[in-house]
Amino acid sequence: MKIAIAQLNPTIGDLANNAQQILNAAKIASENNVRLLLTPELSLCGYPPRDLLLNPSFIESMANVLQQLAQNLPPNIAVLVGTVEPNSKAHVAGGKPLFNSIAWLENGQLQQIFHKRLLPTYDVFDEYRYFEPGLQANAFTLDNLHIGVTICEDLWNDEEFWGKRSYAINPIVDLAQLDVNFIVNLSASPYRVGKHKLRESMLRHSASRFNKPIVYANQVGGNDDLIFDGCSFALNRTGEVVSRAFAFETDLVLIEFDEEKRDLIPANSSSLRGEGKISPLPETEDEEIWGALVLGVRDYARKCGFSKVVIGLSGGIDSALVAAIASSALGSENVFGILMPSPYSSDHSIKDALELAENLGIATEILPIGDLMTGYDKTLEKVFADTSFGLAEENIQSRIRGNLLMAIANKFGYLLLSTGNKSEMAVGYCTLYGDMNGGLAVIADVPKTRVYSLCNWLNAEGLGTGEQKNANLSSIRQEIIPTNIISKPPSAELKPGQVDQDSLPDYDILDDILQRLIHEHQSSAQIIAAGHDATVVNRVMQLVARAEFKRRQAPPGIKITDRAFGTGWRMPIASRWAVNN
Amino acid sequence: MKIAIAQLNPTIGDLANNAQQILNAAKIASENNVRLLLTPELSLCGYPPRDLLLNPSFIESMANVLQQLAQNLPPNIAVLVGTVEPNSKAHVAGGKPLFNSIAWLENGQLQQIFHKRLLPTYDVFDEYRYFEPGLQANAFTLDNLHIGVTICEDLWNDEEFWGKRSYAINPIVDLAQLDVNFIVNLSASPYRVGKHKLRESMLRHSASRFNKPIVYANQVGGNDDLIFDGCSFALNRTGEVVSRAFAFETDLVLIEFDEEKRDLIPANSSSLRGEGKISPLPETEDEEIWGALVLGVRDYARKCGFSKVVIGLSGGIDSALVAAIASSALGSENVFGILMPSPYSSDHSIKDALELAENLGIATEILPIGDLMTGYDKTLEKVFADTSFGLAEENIQSRIRGNLLMAIANKFGYLLLSTGNKSEMAVGYCTLYGDMNGGLAVIADVPKTRVYSLCNWLNAEGLGTGEQKNANLSSIRQEIIPTNIISKPPSAELKPGQVDQDSLPDYDILDDILQRLIHEHQSSAQIIAAGHDATVVNRVMQLVARAEFKRRQAPPGIKITDRAFGTGWRMPIASRWAVNN
Repeated sequence: MKIAIAQLNPTIGDLANNAQQILNAAKIASENNVRLLLTPELSLCGYPPRDLLLNPSFIESMANVLQQLAQNLPPNIAVLVGTVEPNSKAHVAGGKPLFNSIAWLENGQLQQIFHKRLLPTYDVFDEYRYFEPGLQANAFTLDNLHIGVTICEDLWNDEEFWGKRSYAINPIVDLAQLDVNFIVNLSASPYRVGKHKLRESMLRHSASRFNKPIVYANQVGGNDDLIFDGCSFALNRTGEVVSRAFAFETDLVLIEFDEEKRDLIPANSSSLRGEGKISPLPETEDEEIWGALVLGVRDYARKCGFSKVVIGLSGGIDSALVAAIASSALGSENVFGILMPSPYSSDHSIKDALELAENLGIATEILPIGDLMTGYDKTLEKVFADTSFGLAEENIQSRIRGNLLMAIANKFGYLLLSTGNKSEMAVGYCTLYGDMNGGLAVIADVPKTRVYSLCNWLNAEGLGTGEQKNANLSSIRQEIIPTNIISKPPSAELKPGQVDQDSLPDYDILDDILQRLIHEHQSSAQIIAAGHDATVVNRVMQLVARAEFKRRQAPPGIKITDRAFGTGWRMPIASRWAVNN
Repeated sequence: MKIAIAQLNPTIGDLANNAQQILNAAKIASENNVRLLLTPELSLCGYPPRDLLLNPSFIESMANVLQQLAQNLPPNIAVLVGTVEPNSKAHVAGGKPLFNSIAWLENGQLQQIFHKRLLPTYDVFDEYRYFEPGLQANAFTLDNLHIGVTICEDLWNDEEFWGKRSYAINPIVDLAQLDVNFIVNLSASPYRVGKHKLRESMLRHSASRFNKPIVYANQVGGNDDLIFDGCSFALNRTGEVVSRAFAFETDLVLIEFDEEKRDLIPANSSSLRGEGKISPLPETEDEEIWGALVLGVRDYARKCGFSKVVIGLSGGIDSALVAAIASSALGSENVFGILMPSPYSSDHSIKDALELAENLGIATEILPIGDLMTGYDKTLEKVFADTSFGLAEENIQSRIRGNLLMAIANKFGYLLLSTGNKSEMAVGYCTLYGDMNGGLAVIADVPKTRVYSLCNWLNAEGLGTGEQKNANLSSIRQEIIPTNIISKPPSAELKPGQVDQDSLPDYDILDDILQRLIHEHQSSAQIIAAGHDATVVNRVMQLVARAEFKRRQAPPGIKITDRAFGTGWRMPIASRWAVNN
């Protein structure tokens, strides 16, 4: 039996176009004699649909579009489509009104529906908000083959692999008892660094533990803060990868269930892109993160209806990296860099920013803000009498720049990209309504030390070659980020001679403290015991707690770590914990 | 048996001070021969603690503070304290690492722990993110009385009252079978209009259905976007209210379980404030909402460490209402109004704003923004060449004002209050990084028609009398909001002659459409069938969808309805649903 994974990139809520994507994949698959086509979790509405699921008319539309899709599919192909199914017993038995389901479509109609059994409610996941868990093992028979169906989290409870249980049941145990021939998993698994490796090693463990081949179909694409990296794959019963789809791109991958061997093998026809082959995973974390960020910018812009972006270019490393990402994502002709020097700006900041723009091939404008600074000083003269220059005046500069950037974005219909990194967002070293302005915070989950690493990788890599890299940068010369941008001490340049390390510990120290605090949930005692200075640790913890009000008002930031300041970060603002402790 | 409800106002995470509040209440109760003291759900850490619960050191601290509290309590009083308890079997059996629990403290130690059984995961609630549900009925025996213990949601599944089940089990059924003498419910139930009436009628139904007296102890206070209204109460077995605590204030209320009657009765000693009495509920929805908003501003400022606030006064009704609320919450001497007229501002806008400030007794400054507008025009002259005045220029004005307000807030350590109403926030008739700026969006959940109603109520009521009203306004003359502010057509005054209804339908029409769309989840077809113009309905739906990016970056707004644009509103931004449909 020939099986295909459609690694699709749906737009949330765009039911008609998402159905069309599924239909297109089914047609190509059918032409290649595919018998079973897999699509990602909730492929009809895109994942995560969030509170759109609370609209009864949205649920009705999904049912209608699903029925229409079933009728339009080519003959002789079974298609598994991710959708939701009303829980008809909810009001009587108690329970949530929907199931997160997979519909088996064939012969013009819905043949069977399967419900997700394990519902994640951690980090960015809120599935219990909408869904009732399914209670039964999901399997069906197609041409004498018995196929187990699981949805994303259903396969994330292998207590042998994790060393603990997260849920009382493990659906794969039930499927093994049903003696299925192979198991499919339809997923929408958000990206973080190394996630594809984790998925493969987890499912390799499950495949060999239960002696069952597994086909894993993942969503691809950026949806607000979440990136779905694709990297779908198929494992044989010993846990070997027999096929793998691209990272960060749509794909259609064929595999075959060999009925003699009773196992999955690569498909042997060759008319499809990527068919039968094992796409390589990104080689380094930097390459991987770069791919995620480029996809995140491209999809956010496209799905929100923007083709062009504007970025404030300070001459610093953060805005340089964001400009490079945007150029790769959208083409340098669609990126506009605005330089807004103040009297406190260094000469090199203009020179560096212009050199970067030239390297990237992006257009720039220079809008000095000195006169506007004077204008605010005059307007506030009486109110600010007898006070001295401080944070308020620094913030005014940042907010002048934010206003100019938004004016250009509003005037020409551009998307403003903000350029703050995670280290800044963590300690509040950023200006709300100033440099935090933007529709998307491209590197808000990228620590400063990783910003450096990405820029060095970019300069070494040079881009322009390889399937993973975008053709838009092919004409760019080797060193994209000017050396001086990487080597000079980072500075907000909001007062004369200012550098970041006047206010903050060195970034390697800061990022290590933040990693322990945010990702590893360590206490101050534990962080100090790891060798950090107590005063520094306590100050950083206070800064992180006090910056919560800024983060609450930040744009969505592309998530690349296991704990981003986004939908998976839910902290009170008016709180005393970290301030006291 | 004498029982007391401590209607407390904890600060999230401030364990030592929250424990002190409990201890203080226990001492007073003990002096009044109270045998059993009730405190709200999670009274030790405050509700909702959100992701603070992910820190192991936070959980450890709670255990330590709880133990210390047990040792400090006076003798001969049993105290029920809201806390969390680790789920020791989580890793083996699968499940969340914590329970949402009630600790029975007495004789210097923890006597017994009870776990919440029904975990809400709708609207603002994320309890399954942190907690495992308890599986057993909770009851204990004190002085021969058998007492059933429930935690908030545990009593929200009376299928007779709701006409449907939300959960498979109903804990009160189990308690009735155990034949408890009375049931306590420890809650942190967020406010929305009419919520206290709903709670009482729901529990009156349960009390009489099961023939069990119920004591309902609720949290009070503002925690970010959520207001807890208090209004704790006790019902006898026929469902009659025998005692009720204040709305929007801390309180300590005594009741008595009469062992002859086997029922709850008002306590007959009289040394405590509010003792034995039934506090009246607010008489009108306006009075109730006013109380919620005043408490929300007072607590957000206090718990974040601010004593003074700054507000942009436009001469319009929204900023007038916010200034009145802030004056009541913090005292007019702590409220600063900034007038920022532009060349497009009408004469009456200054006059009206100054008259309002005089009525409220708040200080003002006038900072004209014309020169800064010219400054931006000049700075952008080349970039904006050959374009005409439009939204970009309107937004610049709003962002100049936002920058000035933040400069003053930053310089003097004031909290900036933003003044946008819910109707504006819904359709995006507001400027991100401009008039949306602020630490708290006071009326972001108040529709424009309700803004008028509140102002009229305020003018009629006159304040200065009654326990619900704040003494700070006692010297204010009758008509607080100048008549002209209420009667003139609303306008953003961002271009000559502009009024809101150039861009939006009349507010009574808009608010009705929004009510149907946002609160009742109606489809466009349903809203049109209700009598609204199809073009208007579809335009409003598109505006609402397109403004999602603004709402995502809005400050926390005080929730007063069943569906606010806050932690309980989880919408995708890059989405096509409402735009297509």
